[in-house]
Amino acid sequence: MQVIIPFKPINPKSRLSSVLTVKEREKFAILMLQDVIDVIKSCNINPLVLSSDYFELKGLKVIVERGDLNKVLNSMIKKQSCCIVMSDLPLLSKKIFKRFISKKKDVVIAPGRRGGTNMLLVRNKNFKVSYYDGSFFKHLKIAKELGISVQVFDSFFASIDIDLAEDLIELLLHGKGKKSARYLRELGFWIEFKKDLPILRRFH
Amino acid sequence: MQVIIPFKPINPKSRLSSVLTVKEREKFAILMLQDVIDVIKSCNINPLVLSSDYFELKGLKVIVERGDLNKVLNSMIKKQSCCIVMSDLPLLSKKIFKRFISKKKDVVIAPGRRGGTNMLLVRNKNFKVSYYDGSFFKHLKIAKELGISVQVFDSFFASIDIDLAEDLIELLLHGKGKKSARYLRELGFWIEFKKDLPILRRFH
Repeated sequence: MQVIIPFKPINPKSRLSSVLTVKEREKFAILMLQDVIDVIKSCNINPLVLSSDYFELKGLKVIVERGDLNKVLNSMIKKQSCCIVMSDLPLLSKKIFKRFISKKKDVVIAPGRRGGTNMLLVRNKNFKVSYYDGSFFKHLKIAKELGISVQVFDSFFASIDIDLAEDLIELLLHGKGKKSARYLRELGFWIEFKKDLPILRRFH
Repeated sequence: MQVIIPFKPINPKSRLSSVLTVKEREKFAILMLQDVIDVIKSCNINPLVLSSDYFELKGLKVIVERGDLNKVLNSMIKKQSCCIVMSDLPLLSKKIFKRFISKKKDVVIAPGRRGGTNMLLVRNKNFKVSYYDGSFFKHLKIAKELGISVQVFDSFFASIDIDLAEDLIELLLHGKGKKSARYLRELGFWIEFKKDLPILRRFH
């Protein structure tokens, strides 16, 4: 099984630009990717990074692919079983990832917030991915239409993809030991609770 | 084991007041409570609703308790094993709740977004709850300090407590068959995807 991590090294995480500069976002995105890779490698799997631009990370297999992500992934699914993991899931753990890849259905989907697909396991060559705009529901539908067995993988920590400033709160709260969380703290971010709501703060 | 659902019938869910009137919030809160009760009853358990004000729901055991919630719950924990379930978890399912109550540790904690505790199973009389302001971490700490065995229950669907307008999006996306989701749709709410982000819309 091939574990694939799509990645965007240039101007990534643009929805965080209200709280992070482009340089900070680029470093932060790589550290989140590293957190994900650490988990996958701890399961003795060497993931493949599918990058939209040239980029290097020590000891890492990177393919640069500028084409449409869905098309690229679908051509890979045709050839072998694939596990597609988003690069912005820093709260993923070895235990959760092991549980995920141990599921036996043809298609296993870990939902993210906002209708996304955070992890996707595909063991049927006819399946086609369709990321963006509620991909979780599209993936369920595609599997059902093909008559392929499908399982929803229910995990809070795998559901936290870091897209918006509010997601940084979850990373700061739960990200003990994670490189990306440490970087946020180095940048001065911290959490203050006000009337039961955590507020993202930054020292300057 | 006593399953307890704390509930606030008057002016509930005040953080939704930008999108729902007080009448709508009161009805919506009851329907979410009903969704949670439906799940618990489907597991052949009759929950107890701990209400901050007088309120009636057919076939339901309600205790009105105006005191401090933490104190009230701690006095109940002293007497028996308790499972405390928030009333705003409409995406809870029978499968997830069964899995939750089957866990064997002294304390089992299902985290919510924003540092909360969405479900809490307590089998040790010395444990004390401390809701509000990052209760998930407080509960972990209290269990560790007492040397009590503790387990984090990892569930996306149990993590969705409905507090902010953004949470309504999750309910509308995933809430098929749920009374609270149907009510939101009757009120005219729907989801539009824009550049991979779901936006909450309302017909008027």
